[in-house]
Amino acid sequence: MVFTSPRVGGLYFDAVRAGLERAGVTPVARHDVPDGEEHKSLEEYCRALRALLSSFPDPTRAPLVVNLGGGLLSDLGGFVAGTFRRGVPCVHVPTTLLACVDAGVGGKVAVNLGSVKNLVGLFHQPRLVFIDLATLKTLDARELRSGIAEVIKYGAVLSAPLFGRLERDLAKLLAADASLLRTVVAECCRLKARVVAADEFDRKGKRIALNFGHTLGHALEMAAEPHLTHGEAVAVGMVAAARFSARLGFCPETVVRRLRELISRAGLPVSGRGLELAPETVLRLMLHDKKAGRGKLRFVLPTRLGAWRAVEVGDQEVLREVVRYALE
Amino acid sequence: MVFTSPRVGGLYFDAVRAGLERAGVTPVARHDVPDGEEHKSLEEYCRALRALLSSFPDPTRAPLVVNLGGGLLSDLGGFVAGTFRRGVPCVHVPTTLLACVDAGVGGKVAVNLGSVKNLVGLFHQPRLVFIDLATLKTLDARELRSGIAEVIKYGAVLSAPLFGRLERDLAKLLAADASLLRTVVAECCRLKARVVAADEFDRKGKRIALNFGHTLGHALEMAAEPHLTHGEAVAVGMVAAARFSARLGFCPETVVRRLRELISRAGLPVSGRGLELAPETVLRLMLHDKKAGRGKLRFVLPTRLGAWRAVEVGDQEVLREVVRYALE
Repeated sequence: MVFTSPRVGGLYFDAVRAGLERAGVTPVARHDVPDGEEHKSLEEYCRALRALLSSFPDPTRAPLVVNLGGGLLSDLGGFVAGTFRRGVPCVHVPTTLLACVDAGVGGKVAVNLGSVKNLVGLFHQPRLVFIDLATLKTLDARELRSGIAEVIKYGAVLSAPLFGRLERDLAKLLAADASLLRTVVAECCRLKARVVAADEFDRKGKRIALNFGHTLGHALEMAAEPHLTHGEAVAVGMVAAARFSARLGFCPETVVRRLRELISRAGLPVSGRGLELAPETVLRLMLHDKKAGRGKLRFVLPTRLGAWRAVEVGDQEVLREVVRYALE
Repeated sequence: MVFTSPRVGGLYFDAVRAGLERAGVTPVARHDVPDGEEHKSLEEYCRALRALLSSFPDPTRAPLVVNLGGGLLSDLGGFVAGTFRRGVPCVHVPTTLLACVDAGVGGKVAVNLGSVKNLVGLFHQPRLVFIDLATLKTLDARELRSGIAEVIKYGAVLSAPLFGRLERDLAKLLAADASLLRTVVAECCRLKARVVAADEFDRKGKRIALNFGHTLGHALEMAAEPHLTHGEAVAVGMVAAARFSARLGFCPETVVRRLRELISRAGLPVSGRGLELAPETVLRLMLHDKKAGRGKLRFVLPTRLGAWRAVEVGDQEVLREVVRYALE
């Protein structure tokens, strides 16, 4: 069962079906989830479950779920696979740079509920993440940059060599150079897999490293909806987190400067200035993030390039200051 | 958050709330799921998720889910708990004998989809199964007997001493004798916990022992809907499975005789005669059971009292014969 979107399915479903048929995985069915974050919903989850049951009613053959598209598809299709017959195997075929380096690896699957992102879901590891970099050629420049923001995240808190490489070769990456993309995507998947393997169920405080830039980023993304992509919001969140880190004395100012410069060169925003967001709105959304805990917000802060620490902040005045960093 | 039914909530919610408040678990909210298997649905699952989010929007405090009622409540409420924020703790408070010995322990949670029972769900272990046998006093005689069918199941395939005890003391059990209930419920939970601990995710072929009588029972329950309770259908399924076992030479006829006699004395049916079910309908439903695999049906058959083996049957003629045992 291939879950996809009308657009991505139109481009790649035939190739995926042909591949599955050549491998003897038949019959192949297709179910489309409409594009747009508002469709990452319980309603679409239920609709996808019914489609799966209707295409694969035979309980003697467990269906394989293939999620072809961006992060919405792997999140929603993975949740369907994780709960259909209490779990059937799934394969992610990410077709955006963001999904290649973020949603594909890791096993977190979910849908949104109300205004809360990823509120309902579970952990369900894919059997395989199949990345064909040729699919990235159909990405528009803004989608590509959104993915580059997550790539910068990996360099900033997990790998100084990757960060250096990005500083050197950013122009090639922005031009979607095939050889560089292969190196960079593989390295990000390796970095993420290492973190996830050490903390699969997000209970040991290690997986939170992947959240660098996201505490503020998620809130900004929702507050500015639909004017910021996920990557743009994370870019702003990373710069604000780095400034906060420097202000607390956890990292030197050079980290802030190099991060801001790389983000800026990537054509990504370094602040939310101009969006006319109310600080109180962002603060409120941030406090309602799923990852908030025990009355406090946890921030991942760089200590130097490629390294990080977490801090918990409960003081509302301090949180307002961090929001101000992001908006000024 | 207490998930319950209008009837059970009316009887016990105040006591549960008082207990939670005394323990400092506040605030306590209540959400009712209507009685009836047709409400073990994706719609009620979504409605319960929304109620949980609306009562506990604060992401800084993980809610505790308490499922107060029969198996429908622990199955549906457990599924909600297993997926809300990718899993929050839950406690089952079973108020039927069936739920005490069956749904409470084990971690299988799910809702139905279409005509398929428990199609959508996952494994989510409760932190605690809290059984107050005083709640069983409000069960009517037929509900009690339905639970006794599952108790007989434990004796028949997992514990000869329990089976002997039931043969001796059945009258006291039918009278809901408090001391005997305590012994029997505790023993069933111990037996189930031992099986589940050895095969938590139902991948090692051990947990299937709990399915004795259920391969046919589930199909009969659906075919006869609403004329057979779960326990009544399982009772018929157990007798048919024992006859099948004896016919294959896997157990002596005395096992069939003693099982049929105990079930009959408990006021439970030993066959579906009189329900006017079409054998082909039962066969079709059986082949669509979630537990069917690789084109074959697996039956759990007693080899002597307290012991079992599994057989896979693919031959349609043999399956028809087993259905005939259950209907004649």
